[in-house]
Amino acid sequence: MSTQAATAAARRSKITPEREAELYEAVLRLLREGGYDAVTMEGVAARTKCGKATLYRQWGTKPGLVTAALAARRCAVFRGIDTGTLAGDLHEAARMASTRHAGDTELMEAVAQAYLQHPDLRTALRETVIAPEVAAIDAVVQRAVDRGEVAADNPAVAFVAPSLMGLLRIERLLEDRFPDASATRAFVDAVLLPVLRVDG
Amino acid sequence: MSTQAATAAARRSKITPEREAELYEAVLRLLREGGYDAVTMEGVAARTKCGKATLYRQWGTKPGLVTAALAARRCAVFRGIDTGTLAGDLHEAARMASTRHAGDTELMEAVAQAYLQHPDLRTALRETVIAPEVAAIDAVVQRAVDRGEVAADNPAVAFVAPSLMGLLRIERLLEDRFPDASATRAFVDAVLLPVLRVDG
Repeated sequence: MSTQAATAAARRSKITPEREAELYEAVLRLLREGGYDAVTMEGVAARTKCGKATLYRQWGTKPGLVTAALAARRCAVFRGIDTGTLAGDLHEAARMASTRHAGDTELMEAVAQAYLQHPDLRTALRETVIAPEVAAIDAVVQRAVDRGEVAADNPAVAFVAPSLMGLLRIERLLEDRFPDASATRAFVDAVLLPVLRVDG
Repeated sequence: MSTQAATAAARRSKITPEREAELYEAVLRLLREGGYDAVTMEGVAARTKCGKATLYRQWGTKPGLVTAALAARRCAVFRGIDTGTLAGDLHEAARMASTRHAGDTELMEAVAQAYLQHPDLRTALRETVIAPEVAAIDAVVQRAVDRGEVAADNPAVAFVAPSLMGLLRIERLLEDRFPDASATRAFVDAVLLPVLRVDG
């Protein structure tokens, strides 16, 4: 932990974990509802009946508060998948993605837009929201390579995480083509497993 | 053209095409800069020195104006690609995507967020922004099927457009993995062409 992070944690320690979770939840709700611009220190203060001065003292700036709220839910959707086969793992990833989907698409879109419009947030967002998902899928593929299911030099290896995450971001825009939640699983079977040379 | 569209066109006819293009450009600029919520009739009027009453009379509502502005640039990035081979076509698509990329990512993100938050815009956005791109890529794949390059029943056929469009939306979030503009071409070579059983 950096000195800065340690200081910030010490400052936050006056707030109970329950209260902190409540504040973060309010931030994420505002993000989902109206995007990054809809999050204001005033709005968070009003929703949580927390003093605005407290918010500024604890988190410093709006980017600081938003980043902390996103980091707190850093539970990667794809983390912890390990069924023993690549097909099993990717099917499980597809299942988890469709479960999570409804709730978090708005957040993903809000984050994506903030990412483009607010360069100061990029590193924080990438580390807290994007990187953990990519790392979790990369780990699934790496285990398949280690087991000998996939050739280490298969050039498709680098694209499993990006194509899966891209598909998740696009499928809501293509809902006439993918009317049900199984599009991701179908993509795994039709594209990823064949190109990785594994039987589905 | 529907009666409604014809009426709207007749009403707009008092505005010169140049003026209309200028108004639409202002709308798209506001969309890129701040998302859908940043577009207001007031803001467009101020930027273009156009009377607010004129805007309301010509386009009726903000969703009407935004949809018209998006429809006017309905030049699908992927339209008109026809090199004679699937590999050539998909490489050309990758090239065009990276060319267009810098300018239009902000617009895509703004549209994606508006899509989720404003159900009244969905049909219009899908028809004017998403569907033409999907149709253009589908046409590329269909021609490859017609030429016998790709089996018509290859299940990957349905995923060419979605995975390509998904990758384009995600690659900015993964810029450490894809630092240059050739990620889409690499995806074509590493994933799409092999899975469609065509030599790259």
